[in-house]
Amino acid sequence: MPSTQRLRNQHGADRTSPTAAAARRRRLRADQARQLADLLRHQVLGGAFPDGALPHESALCADYLASRNTVRQALDLLRAEGLVERVPGVGTVVVAEKYPHALNRLQGLAETLHEHGRVSNEVRTVGPVVAPGCVAERLGVPDGSEVLYVERLRRLGGLPLSLDLTYIPMDIGVRLLGSDLENTDIFRLLEELTGQPLGTAEITLEAVNADAHSAAVLQAPRGAAVLMLERLTHLADGRPVDLEFIRFRGDRITMQGLVHRSL
Amino acid sequence: MPSTQRLRNQHGADRTSPTAAAARRRRLRADQARQLADLLRHQVLGGAFPDGALPHESALCADYLASRNTVRQALDLLRAEGLVERVPGVGTVVVAEKYPHALNRLQGLAETLHEHGRVSNEVRTVGPVVAPGCVAERLGVPDGSEVLYVERLRRLGGLPLSLDLTYIPMDIGVRLLGSDLENTDIFRLLEELTGQPLGTAEITLEAVNADAHSAAVLQAPRGAAVLMLERLTHLADGRPVDLEFIRFRGDRITMQGLVHRSL
Repeated sequence: MPSTQRLRNQHGADRTSPTAAAARRRRLRADQARQLADLLRHQVLGGAFPDGALPHESALCADYLASRNTVRQALDLLRAEGLVERVPGVGTVVVAEKYPHALNRLQGLAETLHEHGRVSNEVRTVGPVVAPGCVAERLGVPDGSEVLYVERLRRLGGLPLSLDLTYIPMDIGVRLLGSDLENTDIFRLLEELTGQPLGTAEITLEAVNADAHSAAVLQAPRGAAVLMLERLTHLADGRPVDLEFIRFRGDRITMQGLVHRSL
Repeated sequence: MPSTQRLRNQHGADRTSPTAAAARRRRLRADQARQLADLLRHQVLGGAFPDGALPHESALCADYLASRNTVRQALDLLRAEGLVERVPGVGTVVVAEKYPHALNRLQGLAETLHEHGRVSNEVRTVGPVVAPGCVAERLGVPDGSEVLYVERLRRLGGLPLSLDLTYIPMDIGVRLLGSDLENTDIFRLLEELTGQPLGTAEITLEAVNADAHSAAVLQAPRGAAVLMLERLTHLADGRPVDLEFIRFRGDRITMQGLVHRSL
């Protein structure tokens, strides 16, 4: 990264032993590699390298006024994230695509990714369950009543994207049972079955490490970072109709949107 | 989880060997543990257990119509996430708090978390750098010009929450240099220095595994899930003034907001 010598770095500035100086250089280089990796990640995700090949290391050194070691360390970070690979004789190439999920508009997966391919759903489980108290409360159904539980592994172009756990009030759920859950967003089915559009959803996003079983289902490494979305969706008339717990593979999905300062 | 025997599970239904049946039971129990863990996670994060103690295992078995093994496995999942701990003689208690970051309104960290405590910023690096091409382009400054680079480790009540890498155009950045970056959100400083409110930000959210160095800075385990936020913020007049790359500790921050079906 550029101009490091001019930066005021508040760590270890007064240390003078050779060991401390070496440790400080390593730390500085790690900091610089992270800075560079973040800039390159943005370009990788945004498709800035249309032929899929990153510039050669020497070009990156020149473009970012960075040392060869820093450039290599930055590329190592992106490789560890599974975004790029080093191909002998070619250089560093983009190997993973992350798909942008809309954050500003309430959309189903097939809907939000329609430009990127076809979403198919493997229905792992579907059927009525007695609603646990916290589910009944959020869906506004009587304690102890049944709700429809649906568990889907969702794929884009055959690649696992997310594992979705869904609870639906039974009066609507019973009509979902005969629907084409394999090929249709539940959002679209809800609107068809109720004859009204969806309204608003309360969402919570977290980053969690995948447990062993979830990782296996998503075909991701154990401990892989997962973007976890909890979402309670209401119909336009305000009735809550869809409680979901969604684990997106962190290496395949980003959430993108606009945020405004004033409400 | 309730009523499992009534669920149509599409896996292995036709397998009859004892080994296959045992594997199927293990898989079913893992699925049920994940369902239960997701329901409990929501309550843990929402403060539904005000004294910090989860109900006893036998109560959870009754409430969720789940077997003892399923309940234990669900609690193991939450323990692996660092949300709860088992305390001998007491039971399972909540040990981690995740703080809700607003997703609907553009806010600085101190601003969005003001109800939860005081945010302090350790300024690891601050100074001018020659803007890399992609930074210059996004900030709308001439290629090769200088921008202010700021790197902050941000804490709430002393606990590391996020590592923020920030690029600011130099005409504004030079005035930031004399500001109290340790105790003030950059958003607030930008509004003070420019005399106008912020407008809109383009954001991208991802879940990534922390590299070794970032994890060390955040005092998190290597590979810990990190909520990564890239954000380009504009002033109300549309000028881009703040490009940030933020790594939130996944075990300390959630993003919460409302999403609407129609725009």
